[in-house]
Amino acid sequence: MRKLGVQEIEDIALGAAVLGTGGGGDPHIGKLMALQAVQQYGPVDLIDVDQVPDDALIVPLAMMGAPTVLIEKIPNGDEFTRVFHALKQYLGKEVYATMPIEAGGVNSMIPVASAARLGIPLVDADGMGRAFPELQMVTFHLGGITATPMAMTDEKGNLIILSTVTNLWTEHLARSATVVMGGSAMIAIYPLTGAQAREWAIRGIVTRTEEIGRTLRLWGRRSGSVRSQAAALRRDLPPVVATMPGGVAGEECAGGASTGRRAGPGEVPEGDVVQALLALTAGYLLFRGKVVDVARRTVGGFARGEALLEGLDEFRGQSMRIHFQNENLIALCDGEVRATVPDLITVLDAETARPITTEGLRYGYRAVVVGMPCDSRWRTPRGLETVGPRYFGYDVDYIPIEQRMAGQRG
Amino acid sequence: MRKLGVQEIEDIALGAAVLGTGGGGDPHIGKLMALQAVQQYGPVDLIDVDQVPDDALIVPLAMMGAPTVLIEKIPNGDEFTRVFHALKQYLGKEVYATMPIEAGGVNSMIPVASAARLGIPLVDADGMGRAFPELQMVTFHLGGITATPMAMTDEKGNLIILSTVTNLWTEHLARSATVVMGGSAMIAIYPLTGAQAREWAIRGIVTRTEEIGRTLRLWGRRSGSVRSQAAALRRDLPPVVATMPGGVAGEECAGGASTGRRAGPGEVPEGDVVQALLALTAGYLLFRGKVVDVARRTVGGFARGEALLEGLDEFRGQSMRIHFQNENLIALCDGEVRATVPDLITVLDAETARPITTEGLRYGYRAVVVGMPCDSRWRTPRGLETVGPRYFGYDVDYIPIEQRMAGQRG
Repeated sequence: MRKLGVQEIEDIALGAAVLGTGGGGDPHIGKLMALQAVQQYGPVDLIDVDQVPDDALIVPLAMMGAPTVLIEKIPNGDEFTRVFHALKQYLGKEVYATMPIEAGGVNSMIPVASAARLGIPLVDADGMGRAFPELQMVTFHLGGITATPMAMTDEKGNLIILSTVTNLWTEHLARSATVVMGGSAMIAIYPLTGAQAREWAIRGIVTRTEEIGRTLRLWGRRSGSVRSQAAALRRDLPPVVATMPGGVAGEECAGGASTGRRAGPGEVPEGDVVQALLALTAGYLLFRGKVVDVARRTVGGFARGEALLEGLDEFRGQSMRIHFQNENLIALCDGEVRATVPDLITVLDAETARPITTEGLRYGYRAVVVGMPCDSRWRTPRGLETVGPRYFGYDVDYIPIEQRMAGQRG
Repeated sequence: MRKLGVQEIEDIALGAAVLGTGGGGDPHIGKLMALQAVQQYGPVDLIDVDQVPDDALIVPLAMMGAPTVLIEKIPNGDEFTRVFHALKQYLGKEVYATMPIEAGGVNSMIPVASAARLGIPLVDADGMGRAFPELQMVTFHLGGITATPMAMTDEKGNLIILSTVTNLWTEHLARSATVVMGGSAMIAIYPLTGAQAREWAIRGIVTRTEEIGRTLRLWGRRSGSVRSQAAALRRDLPPVVATMPGGVAGEECAGGASTGRRAGPGEVPEGDVVQALLALTAGYLLFRGKVVDVARRTVGGFARGEALLEGLDEFRGQSMRIHFQNENLIALCDGEVRATVPDLITVLDAETARPITTEGLRYGYRAVVVGMPCDSRWRTPRGLETVGPRYFGYDVDYIPIEQRMAGQRG
């Protein structure tokens, strides 16, 4: 167990934007809620999933709906406690801890704010290892764990308890209620036991998110207020690199400090931090280029579209097309698929090291595109049926990013 | 207390079609469900609202959604018990009885079927005294009684419990869930105490509905299989006329046996039964004529439209226009308003004495249009705000039908 305070929250929020893969909602508003909650109620206890007794109940909390609405309709905090207590009362059991259902985007922060307010620990795990748009897109679903009973509430005080026959019905009914509630709602969902969480949750994801955020923060600091010390700092690779798990990938990629964009006056190359990020996430540099076209339209509540990038540096002469539906779903380099959902595709601003959401993509951005392998549960038949490229309407087979990148080089 | 068996159910269903004022759903399917339930579980105890102890709980049951869907998606009976027990468990209290929320249309029958299955009495009262399309359109609402907690379920087994901040929010959220559930849902709503029911429910409406149905049945019998006995039977006014409450109106109306459509071979004039109906409901004969035009369109889930009738008999040379939105809402004779919602406007087929729904209105029908005063609670400012003509979008003041008809004659 350790404490999550202000710095940890800042880092988790930044890391969550990476795992948001362009969607999941900008964690900024969520971060403000989490910071306010820990300032008022004290830091949050982050516990390992192994610390939760077998029969003890974990109730994940999340925001459902359009993140854009959240900005105009900021929860006042009562929603957390109302929805939590409603579900607890309906279940008729004590609740041991809360947990995120998704590590990417704004829902990385909602459970932190909730844990602080409710005075319960936060479990270092989630159900996606990234962000996804629908309620059944969690590893719990793959394990046959039902989403309901779930509770949902709005800022006005309306409260709904759902008990459905399938998790897809939960999604349908809760989605429609969210729309009526004004576009966003607070939910308590997938109540699960410690034993279930140990088997089906993605472990250690909060800590990994924090490490990702810390890595980007160091880059941000260098290219920010301490630009003049850039050269000296270049030797200090972020300390997290030494402790990262699964740090075998990345070195095969074309990207690296030596091949990065050449630094202009007062800037530092981003290469070393990108390398640290890739190592930390077992990821790949997919592309480095300039956004030259973005087409988007809102279809069925999703921000659908695609972005076109023209290569820079070692990618000069090549182009990358990214298809997105809230999240980045497919990345193609000169027409060849490099990565698809459920693997993670994230676009970073090369100037600031901040992840760019699909909503935020604009002509002229110099961007670094990274691809990261998803949790292995998503690669099972049931996982791919739930979140594979075909579920999102693309006629593309899922091939793990490791194989695609190896093939591309073979 | 008395028992509701097969004949009572037949009569209530027929009367409910009159109080449905063209909408509320054809009670036919509901009647089949009620008949099946009493055949399987025995007759239902109908109790007076005064027999319910002050603190005892009444849970009304109803169907929500499009009645047309009900025909294709007939409840299998589990819905009644599931939704009832879900709400009971949520409330954590025993339930003494059930009750209709509306006397008109299919929801007259749902609580009869439910009472039989659940083995609890049916209270002889409702919350509308007719049919209305939205959940807040009940006299309970005028009394500040909240619709929630309410429960709703579908035939698949999905279950929702709602707890809302206003009854309008209940309507919005439940309506949207009904759509997702496939267009119809079974609901348990407006849990209220015996004391609340005594103050706000419309008393004796089940019995009154039955009397209306019995009156029409006698007409139907005459013009049906026993047509040859028509002349002899004409002397037998339905016995109910002698016992009806408030039977002062009607005699001033233009319509009457003597002025009715002249009987052709093998037919009987409907005048005497119409007179009995008007006396029973304190109603007025608004028109007698032939349907010459019907325009309808579906707007926002409502069957909106209007029907034009050309006068027959004493109405020859006049025309009547009826505007409807599921229910008949306004009736104008030669452009002059004769009746508006919340007063009741019902169109009867002059050949069969069966009420015609707004969906069923067809060119060529010979029809009798009757207007009946609504419960006095609907005539209060809050009542008219809830169900007056302006709520339905008509720029017409509500004037009680008694005044309109007196004025028309003055």
